[in-house]
Amino acid sequence: MPKNRKLNRPVILGIVGDSGAGKTTLAQGIASILGPSRVTMICTDDYHRYSREERALSGVSALDPKGNYMDIMEQHIQLLRAGRPILKPVYNHTNGTLDAPEYVEPGEYMIVEGLLGYSTRAMRDCYDVKLYLEPQEELRAAWKMQRDVSKRGYTADEVRRQIEKRLRDGITFIRPQRTFADLVLSFRHPVASSLGEPEEDDKDTASYLNARHTLRPTLPHPDLTPIVEGSKNGIRLELARDIDGKPVDVLEIEGDVDDKRAKAMEDLLWNLIPEANHLRSNLGQYMDASQETRMSHPLALSQLLITYHLVKAAMGHYAI
Amino acid sequence: MPKNRKLNRPVILGIVGDSGAGKTTLAQGIASILGPSRVTMICTDDYHRYSREERALSGVSALDPKGNYMDIMEQHIQLLRAGRPILKPVYNHTNGTLDAPEYVEPGEYMIVEGLLGYSTRAMRDCYDVKLYLEPQEELRAAWKMQRDVSKRGYTADEVRRQIEKRLRDGITFIRPQRTFADLVLSFRHPVASSLGEPEEDDKDTASYLNARHTLRPTLPHPDLTPIVEGSKNGIRLELARDIDGKPVDVLEIEGDVDDKRAKAMEDLLWNLIPEANHLRSNLGQYMDASQETRMSHPLALSQLLITYHLVKAAMGHYAI
Repeated sequence: MPKNRKLNRPVILGIVGDSGAGKTTLAQGIASILGPSRVTMICTDDYHRYSREERALSGVSALDPKGNYMDIMEQHIQLLRAGRPILKPVYNHTNGTLDAPEYVEPGEYMIVEGLLGYSTRAMRDCYDVKLYLEPQEELRAAWKMQRDVSKRGYTADEVRRQIEKRLRDGITFIRPQRTFADLVLSFRHPVASSLGEPEEDDKDTASYLNARHTLRPTLPHPDLTPIVEGSKNGIRLELARDIDGKPVDVLEIEGDVDDKRAKAMEDLLWNLIPEANHLRSNLGQYMDASQETRMSHPLALSQLLITYHLVKAAMGHYAI
Repeated sequence: MPKNRKLNRPVILGIVGDSGAGKTTLAQGIASILGPSRVTMICTDDYHRYSREERALSGVSALDPKGNYMDIMEQHIQLLRAGRPILKPVYNHTNGTLDAPEYVEPGEYMIVEGLLGYSTRAMRDCYDVKLYLEPQEELRAAWKMQRDVSKRGYTADEVRRQIEKRLRDGITFIRPQRTFADLVLSFRHPVASSLGEPEEDDKDTASYLNARHTLRPTLPHPDLTPIVEGSKNGIRLELARDIDGKPVDVLEIEGDVDDKRAKAMEDLLWNLIPEANHLRSNLGQYMDASQETRMSHPLALSQLLITYHLVKAAMGHYAI
């Protein structure tokens, strides 16, 4: 076992959110901080019970638990948590077929991302950290369009129709899982008036997006008061009521937060996990629509906040 | 739970033997006695790690544990024994590809048949009854030829080459599992002199085959002395040393046993499992090479002897 580790089973991060919410991108970013060789990622969408063709015939949505092997998904997450390998089914997103399964061994860290990862109590009990991604709806539509056209072989019209058709499924099957998350992360466009007019080529890119974290008291979140006391520019922490009326902390990180302040929060978080200081690098990078590597403070600080919890979990701080 | 049942988990019969040993045929025969709806069958050959094409390139044999997901096979048998469903991989015997997995729920009875089912201690601990099939080598070659040409799309020449090539693999990987079986069943041609010349069209059909059971003391076998004392015609039970020198009972049922004597053994076995008397039917039927349904006493009595153990196991007689 590595020195900076006390837990003798995989640490599991869950990422749930609707189609196009940015789950895979966030998962890859966190994996690249922890070191890809230490992280095993699986996608719960692989547990689709029907091919795209079969779904078209039957009308069962891919977002409906009935259209997925939910009991097997639960069983496999339990097995991975117990450190055992699985033979994971494979849903081929490119052509919509069910392919031969693949052998997956649990890593030191596991990221389990997908549409339905918090559907059952037994599943939810397997995660160390549960994240729910809820970008502003227009952002999600744009992200989904970009990916489904470039990587999954759909036409723009097909994606538009699918977004519309699946809106109700998302509300029915995906959104109820939000309530089980320890953190709800929402990327959003800043309110126009607070920002002025962005340069044309910066529009819709994450460098201007704000990150809003809803922090539930189900995890011991780091003490951010040294950062947020005094100035409220760029980073704010506020007590609020969540949409379900429950008390939460809301952490708002603005897209235009200045470098110095972002650096201060970054340093504070790294200092709280000295065991992981060798991982400092590559924070907040993403590919924009023209495949350029860019950097975003809200993305960087969001990745780091989640990494903070994973490292704490690995140190055994969250073990029962 | 049905009235004639005390065990609250599936009863599992293992059938292991080399390629063409008659595993599937025997499994289907036993399932048809117990009632197909109460029996779930799985084949451990579905856990092949490589497609036929990949095996041809790498030279890894399908009979080699290295060419199979042995840990997943073990895990799945354990899950089924615990009454949990699995998502079983699928090896397509027709074209040699790895296909989409299939959902399998445990039945009241399970038959797990294949090449490598007794490879690990943890697997072996899952079975209630372990059978090893070891037909006379020339019979196995004939059966394999018939099946691989008619059902798996091979030419006769390809099958012959495969039988030769795999002989060593069988000795290395399959045969060592024989020692873990509770029963070793060997169909064989009667010694010619004891039988006279069979009619031409009966040659090589199971109606003239003898069945030899090697009965290990790892299961409480039924008391057959009422049948075998006195006359030794057609059915014999003898104390013997197995090929490994260990003491065993050898039960020999000859192909030409007369109907009356076969009926006496049948009645004796059914009377020992009154709970299962509603199942009496269809014993010993098989399809000959010309697809005619035929009847064999040795096959009937072998099926019944195995069924006897499964019913006893279901009644909880073999529970720890």
